[in-house]
Amino acid sequence: MSSYEIMYPLSPSPFNLQKRQGYNKNMNFTFLSPVKIIFGTGSVDNLVDAIHSLHQSAHTDTKASGPGKILVVTGKNSLRASNIIQILEDGNLEYNIFVQEGEPTVEKFALALEKIQNSGIEMIVAIGGGSIIDTGKALSALITNTQNIMTYLEVIGKGSPLENRSLPMIAIPTTAGTGAEATCNAVLTSLEHKVKVSLRSPYMYPDIAIVDPLLCRSMPPHITASTGMDALVQLIESFTSKFSNPITDALCRDGIQRVARSLYKAWKKPQDVDARIDMSLAGLYSGITLANAKLGAVHGIAAPMGGMTAAPHGIICALLLAPVMRENIRTIQETQETAGETLYTDQALVRYLEISKILTSNLSAQIHDSLEWIENLVTNMNLPATAEINLTSEERVLLAEKAMNSSSMKGNPVPLNTKQLIKIINRSIP
Amino acid sequence: MSSYEIMYPLSPSPFNLQKRQGYNKNMNFTFLSPVKIIFGTGSVDNLVDAIHSLHQSAHTDTKASGPGKILVVTGKNSLRASNIIQILEDGNLEYNIFVQEGEPTVEKFALALEKIQNSGIEMIVAIGGGSIIDTGKALSALITNTQNIMTYLEVIGKGSPLENRSLPMIAIPTTAGTGAEATCNAVLTSLEHKVKVSLRSPYMYPDIAIVDPLLCRSMPPHITASTGMDALVQLIESFTSKFSNPITDALCRDGIQRVARSLYKAWKKPQDVDARIDMSLAGLYSGITLANAKLGAVHGIAAPMGGMTAAPHGIICALLLAPVMRENIRTIQETQETAGETLYTDQALVRYLEISKILTSNLSAQIHDSLEWIENLVTNMNLPATAEINLTSEERVLLAEKAMNSSSMKGNPVPLNTKQLIKIINRSIP
Repeated sequence: MSSYEIMYPLSPSPFNLQKRQGYNKNMNFTFLSPVKIIFGTGSVDNLVDAIHSLHQSAHTDTKASGPGKILVVTGKNSLRASNIIQILEDGNLEYNIFVQEGEPTVEKFALALEKIQNSGIEMIVAIGGGSIIDTGKALSALITNTQNIMTYLEVIGKGSPLENRSLPMIAIPTTAGTGAEATCNAVLTSLEHKVKVSLRSPYMYPDIAIVDPLLCRSMPPHITASTGMDALVQLIESFTSKFSNPITDALCRDGIQRVARSLYKAWKKPQDVDARIDMSLAGLYSGITLANAKLGAVHGIAAPMGGMTAAPHGIICALLLAPVMRENIRTIQETQETAGETLYTDQALVRYLEISKILTSNLSAQIHDSLEWIENLVTNMNLPATAEINLTSEERVLLAEKAMNSSSMKGNPVPLNTKQLIKIINRSIP
Repeated sequence: MSSYEIMYPLSPSPFNLQKRQGYNKNMNFTFLSPVKIIFGTGSVDNLVDAIHSLHQSAHTDTKASGPGKILVVTGKNSLRASNIIQILEDGNLEYNIFVQEGEPTVEKFALALEKIQNSGIEMIVAIGGGSIIDTGKALSALITNTQNIMTYLEVIGKGSPLENRSLPMIAIPTTAGTGAEATCNAVLTSLEHKVKVSLRSPYMYPDIAIVDPLLCRSMPPHITASTGMDALVQLIESFTSKFSNPITDALCRDGIQRVARSLYKAWKKPQDVDARIDMSLAGLYSGITLANAKLGAVHGIAAPMGGMTAAPHGIICALLLAPVMRENIRTIQETQETAGETLYTDQALVRYLEISKILTSNLSAQIHDSLEWIENLVTNMNLPATAEINLTSEERVLLAEKAMNSSSMKGNPVPLNTKQLIKIINRSIP
């Protein structure tokens, strides 16, 4: 039996799981993740089959003859689009192309939508990073829901629910980290209001996500780094969220381990397929977990910060992660010292400790070891650990106030006040 | 920092995860679990809201005014049905009641369907064990798909795909173990063919599963035991299945741990809410994992064995689990000795070893320790570890031959021949 040595110990140990239930004593949660996931190296070759099966199930009553006209939503990278287009050509499918450059803005999106709305599109295939997939989701929602976009937008609009199902939609991520292929919201930047806001609806889950890790090999290292940090932040914030549940917990544990062992490798060696598989899984999980367990202060600050500065979302997340974790841990520890230990905050600390152990691969790690590990990873991947982003002190106060109203802030494991948010902001952009 | 002692080690350890990828080198898998899960103690109180929201999303285009007539599918336990009916009465909802006694047969089902088909039912709410929920799923599918049932049945029928969406359906399990609330098949017994067969379709996932662990407190201990063993078997067979994937793996690990610590407790103390929560989660997970990773030889034999004998499914699973695991382990080890170690079979053994460690809560456990643990649990819960079920030697050969053709057999980690299946059968029913 010598070859069947202990491979790894168990998590969470059966001896200690009992205590964890205090985190959500009644275990009340809802979980929904309706996206059909087609995962694996080469899985993009299933696109034509996926289009036909989606058409079949979407049109089961009308028995329309074929999938109709497809809108391919893509970024500037024409090579990637041309591969997809070849697949559609080979499948004798009719398509138009919509190119989205950079992160979508409310203003440009509304103009584009007007042109597309009456062009007879019956299905959307979005291939690209989170911005592209979000653009595809927003288009699929608003082609069939025809009131003004402000009717549906959160925060700056009315936030009314969509009335109708979205167009059938397939998401094909080419980055690993945003999780957009598994969520039901699309983030748009309002230039007018200087904030990132969501269009959100249960109708906005992609019907199918084709997650092919090989597509990520063409990512430049700095995009591997920033989108990978986004995945890590989303997994950590879901795992410590007040709304975490046993299903998201299981995925967070597995996902954080995959980031820990593979993000740096994928950055260092873009062709490392095992590392790409791990990161694609971690990104996918992070979408499933954030859609169900919500997020925390990093994303609470990142939404308005992205609107007020030109910095990419992944960079902002990388800058904020360690300062937010430090402040959360400190605040929980102080609360325990003053108000007595409560089961709830205790469990949040247990989770931060577990994160330290997973990230450092060291079972004796202490609760703050994760912070150093994160800062090292960030600088080793040539991302800035702090950044010169010009915000005056008045703007920082405004940013903190906007962050207080962000929906992500509600999942943070402990309430933070404006002063604490300003401290976090000042640590990340001195 | 003394209060933040190591709570539990990590699984799978970042040091060893790499090797596990050999199990499915390209990580190719599909995953679909579209059921909206509403979990928690007291969650059944959300039934009326769930009915209205399901009606809204299902009828988004027609804007019908209300949910219409609901068919409540229930078992003989009238107390349980009366609680649900009170909730529907309080919500001013119109309903009929359909009582399913015992496991459904093709013959009786077809008769019942005929009566229901034109009664104007617009939604189904099934509350009960796996048989009841399966009956609800089959009714919801065949009210809208009106060809003869044999058109759609697997194995004994044509197995044609359903043409139309099922009626909207809500599943409310009152046992913890079958996972029927999360799967897209319904098991029916053919009296004529003496076999259990499935009606299966992506349209047959319940739209909503309301999983309220408090409902399980009224289960008699022997049902707690047999349904709980079903959950354990489904988790172990998914975890060792050839079609396992990282998402089902994460749920299997968590679920097996919950069974290990809570099944005996739930049997011993029916009112233990924490144990009921664990078992409800384990049962739910087992449905998600079997729908995506498939099963193995236990279920391959159980389907025809349930058709040929009157024994309940959970009891059959409990009888077969240890003998199947022993034979699988032995066969894999022999294959390694004769044909040399392959990465694939190695990984199956690693998984069996991990199961031993989880079940015994002992990190030094050996690969066969799980068998003794399972046999002890079974006898401690007064279930038979072997049973006097009358099958002649000719019938046993026939049973083994039927099992070879069962769809579950395909997930078994190693191919077994008819002779091996007969050996397993003879061990479980001497």
